[in-house]
Amino acid sequence: MLSKKVIKDIQSLGHKKLRDEAGLFVAEGRKIVEELINTKGVVIDTIYAVPDWIDYYPDLQNVKVVTKAELQRISFLTTPNKVLALVKYFPVQEPSTKSLVLYLDEIQDPGNLGTILRIADWFGIYNVVCSEQCADHYNPKVVQATMGSIARVRVYSDYELQWLRSQKPVYVATVEGTDMDRFGKVNEGVLVIGNESRGIREEILDLATARVSIPKKGGAESLNAAIATGILLSHMLT
Amino acid sequence: MLSKKVIKDIQSLGHKKLRDEAGLFVAEGRKIVEELINTKGVVIDTIYAVPDWIDYYPDLQNVKVVTKAELQRISFLTTPNKVLALVKYFPVQEPSTKSLVLYLDEIQDPGNLGTILRIADWFGIYNVVCSEQCADHYNPKVVQATMGSIARVRVYSDYELQWLRSQKPVYVATVEGTDMDRFGKVNEGVLVIGNESRGIREEILDLATARVSIPKKGGAESLNAAIATGILLSHMLT
Repeated sequence: MLSKKVIKDIQSLGHKKLRDEAGLFVAEGRKIVEELINTKGVVIDTIYAVPDWIDYYPDLQNVKVVTKAELQRISFLTTPNKVLALVKYFPVQEPSTKSLVLYLDEIQDPGNLGTILRIADWFGIYNVVCSEQCADHYNPKVVQATMGSIARVRVYSDYELQWLRSQKPVYVATVEGTDMDRFGKVNEGVLVIGNESRGIREEILDLATARVSIPKKGGAESLNAAIATGILLSHMLT
Repeated sequence: MLSKKVIKDIQSLGHKKLRDEAGLFVAEGRKIVEELINTKGVVIDTIYAVPDWIDYYPDLQNVKVVTKAELQRISFLTTPNKVLALVKYFPVQEPSTKSLVLYLDEIQDPGNLGTILRIADWFGIYNVVCSEQCADHYNPKVVQATMGSIARVRVYSDYELQWLRSQKPVYVATVEGTDMDRFGKVNEGVLVIGNESRGIREEILDLATARVSIPKKGGAESLNAAIATGILLSHMLT
């Protein structure tokens, strides 16, 4: 049985400050937890699971059996899914700029950020740099939206323009830029994706090597930031 | 002041059955409501707005002034945004197959469906056909996620395989198909997008003219259905 303290401690991981203090994030559901377990370098602190999940993983350490009702109490999902893991924060490193890096400027919606990390993973982009105003990538909603890609994509938080200034080339996704099909393929540098409602900040436009756009054929005013990221990567990468 | 009956009637539009009976859907927020007002053929039943919104539209008919507190009571948003409109259902027609049509197979998440309609609008696809198990396109969450594209994209609900069987060519998005870059451009026929977790139904695969895929370079197992739609349309359309 889970003590009140344990339940409270897990629930506290929904708050960035307390999560940072514990150095632990929450991952839920069979798919995501199993990917994390099977990814080299990922350190699982504790797994809380219902009995029929545990039957498949008899050799795992740090597993605690919980009832469905207990899982409901510690879960961040509307419909909890058999297993919840507390995972250690990944070591803080510097982004590798050997291949194309994504720079996310003020992507505040957790679902959007998680979806972008999943897209990056699909296209083999393993370095995603976030500006200060981005959602926290260890937010349970972000982790969930990555569908397991959080295990493979390294996210670097709170990088401001100072860092971007030292990079070259810097490609910025804007509404008015070179058509992505005439842009040529890119293998290095940084691709900047901005906040959808406010667009790209002036200071970032100033340091852009080039601007790239998705040609519009119909009436919609804009595309969601995650959709734009997927489309641009699918055209710009070799 | 809004009567209890009016508030209840508006709230009832969150339920498909009652919405269908009224033949009215809810659109909220300045951007979406203003796009609907300005789109030819869209019939606005009633607009509920706070005074500072109405100041910009002094000539509009059917506008009722509400307080912020009243707007909060009738709104389907967490943070209501100045104006809520009740809009008449669009006339039921048959999909035009003169240009490429999207067929959505069991896209159940309202946010995903709305985002797909926004993408269709961006790429100039104005006919989207939905299978029976899709979310209802008049669901307030879908309307909101379209960001106004609901005004331009025609959605045809509850079309089952009978209809798809009469179409040619039928392109189906699958994990194992022809690489979209080697697929060639398409201007007619149907592109089928399936439910992400279950994939495309066998019966649909059986009637596919061709299968098309987004090449995967990294570790993610799949892409969200809306992301896949955006990427495929950006490559397949001329």
